[in-house]
Amino acid sequence: MTTPTLSLACDLINRESVTPVDAGCQEMMIERLKALGFSIEVMVFEDTTNFWARRGTEAPLFAFAGHTDVVPSGPIDQWHTPPFEATIIDDHLHGRGAADMKGSLASMIVAVEEFIAQHPVHKGSIAFLITSDEEGPFINGTTRVVDTLMERGELIDMCIVGEPSSTTEVGDVVKNGRRGSITGDITFKGIQGHVAYPHIAKNPVHGALPALGELASTQWDEGNEFFPPTSFQIPNLQAGTGASNVIPGEFNVQFNMRFSTELDNQRIQQRVHSILDAHGLDYQLDWTFNGDPFLTDKGALLDAVVAAVTKVNHKAPQLLTTGGTSDGRFIAKMGTQVIELGPVNATIHKVNECVSITDLEKLTEMYKQTLIHLFAQS
Amino acid sequence: MTTPTLSLACDLINRESVTPVDAGCQEMMIERLKALGFSIEVMVFEDTTNFWARRGTEAPLFAFAGHTDVVPSGPIDQWHTPPFEATIIDDHLHGRGAADMKGSLASMIVAVEEFIAQHPVHKGSIAFLITSDEEGPFINGTTRVVDTLMERGELIDMCIVGEPSSTTEVGDVVKNGRRGSITGDITFKGIQGHVAYPHIAKNPVHGALPALGELASTQWDEGNEFFPPTSFQIPNLQAGTGASNVIPGEFNVQFNMRFSTELDNQRIQQRVHSILDAHGLDYQLDWTFNGDPFLTDKGALLDAVVAAVTKVNHKAPQLLTTGGTSDGRFIAKMGTQVIELGPVNATIHKVNECVSITDLEKLTEMYKQTLIHLFAQS
Repeated sequence: MTTPTLSLACDLINRESVTPVDAGCQEMMIERLKALGFSIEVMVFEDTTNFWARRGTEAPLFAFAGHTDVVPSGPIDQWHTPPFEATIIDDHLHGRGAADMKGSLASMIVAVEEFIAQHPVHKGSIAFLITSDEEGPFINGTTRVVDTLMERGELIDMCIVGEPSSTTEVGDVVKNGRRGSITGDITFKGIQGHVAYPHIAKNPVHGALPALGELASTQWDEGNEFFPPTSFQIPNLQAGTGASNVIPGEFNVQFNMRFSTELDNQRIQQRVHSILDAHGLDYQLDWTFNGDPFLTDKGALLDAVVAAVTKVNHKAPQLLTTGGTSDGRFIAKMGTQVIELGPVNATIHKVNECVSITDLEKLTEMYKQTLIHLFAQS
Repeated sequence: MTTPTLSLACDLINRESVTPVDAGCQEMMIERLKALGFSIEVMVFEDTTNFWARRGTEAPLFAFAGHTDVVPSGPIDQWHTPPFEATIIDDHLHGRGAADMKGSLASMIVAVEEFIAQHPVHKGSIAFLITSDEEGPFINGTTRVVDTLMERGELIDMCIVGEPSSTTEVGDVVKNGRRGSITGDITFKGIQGHVAYPHIAKNPVHGALPALGELASTQWDEGNEFFPPTSFQIPNLQAGTGASNVIPGEFNVQFNMRFSTELDNQRIQQRVHSILDAHGLDYQLDWTFNGDPFLTDKGALLDAVVAAVTKVNHKAPQLLTTGGTSDGRFIAKMGTQVIELGPVNATIHKVNECVSITDLEKLTEMYKQTLIHLFAQS
């Protein structure tokens, strides 16, 4: 038996919207929102299509945020079903984007339709901030829409991002913040030479090893009530020409840190440089800032989401700040309360991505109950 | 003014004998040696041409050893002269192989011709062991000829390898031994994962860093009178997929050790494993044995070579065991006294390889004087 949420989720999955292509997904959502009285603003930046939809002019301004783009299918022969043909097998909806995050988009639309049908006159304003560049370089997506809104002083007070936050069933985990992320690319410089003549060469690997060991074993902080301790990881490193008799002249190391609200970009940079400099190394270090940490630890939104999830699941969600980055970090810049609530993330970015149909219906109800908590006239 | 040595060196350089191709170089040498009464044995193993030539049946057996193959030219546009056209500019002969080691081959042939002209009846036996696979995988070259000789009990007592041993003028350095060489390829094993979830992954780089630091900073020995301390170098290492958000599952590290006679393969393996094991690492280590160290610290050959060089240069050579490996290590297996004496090595394996013509004439004289010291009838 199909439902409005399942039907819309299928229609979205059937459109092959690999980043930054939207493939008409947003138009489909816009038609539904127009019918509900939303005013629509399509924002195209370079190759990326985004839209901002708003119903009402009152404060507070609540927004659903999400993305219509999906990651590529990966090896097609490992899929049991065609990735861009929504397929139902037992209680699961299969297809690329089913969990990340076309299912969530369908739940958002249907939740708003049902809420407005019951509460045509509501408090506050309801909005949608939808992009087609969340899985890509995220340059022309949410961040540009946020800039536009901030320039005109239209600040989002509360936001639910539909990212798949859950672990084994929808709502078991709600993300009420995310760690910051910063990446460093170091080139340690030495002097190339023949391994038989080490005294006239300088192996940059040897010089860097103790410094890297110190970086990898440093306790950066102890985290806090809401965040795990800051982590340091070396995802990539390389030195050498491949020849076993050549001392390399350069050593390239990339590290990534996921950091808590106990740290910030500037203090991290200072501490990393301080460790490297103490070892007297000749190096160049280029930084990439991927996002500051944010936290929504209390307030109307968290109360409403916890109440909504608890009502549907008969148990409260776990509040976590772990996991990867999302567009929530860009929205949080506005001073927004940001919560991530979406389906189980076990299959995202993998072959045979799927989502529980039961969970999708529950998610629609959780979104709707959140709106009722926030905006239903008493 | 051309000389027999210069003329033959030019003829050899003009043949493009990039490993394992001989391009007729050996045939040219063989014709000259046949004319002197040498018996010739061509030994072809797979793609490699070698020859063994001997004059006389008496002991002791003295051999000149060398190779007709050369390394590739490298970037041709960086050469000032065509690499395979011998070109004389002032006092230097230019061309690939001029120093490594077609110049030496010419000096050997001419030295023997002159010695035999003056001493048609001489003590001992004179031999040539020539290969076309010294710069390559050295599987079918000197090592196979040595095996053949050892099987039939024809052991070389004394050998001069014509490798470019000199630093600023021919004979300033004679190599009277070489360090051993051993290579290890380690794969450290971890568990791949997302950098945002380090607790369910295991970064093999982090675990290996302290162990690698210890290996790189270990004093393996202090060397001895003849050898510098054993050296440890990491020429190659790599981990990561390139993605900044993936914790690598494997970490590949290659190291090479040049070791003195204070150590041997077995003790090195024990000590390396002991360090790695003490760090509790999951790893696989594959060893490649490139050669044991050897030393010719006294005896008739060293005396003869030192006397010959001193006579030509009016000063004694420095005796060193530093530098890269050579085919001398394979010959030393026979219990042979092995000495390396050849021209200046500053340009070998580089573009614009060249050799001093004056040095080549001196080298011919040094080889001839060595033969006189060893084998002239008193």
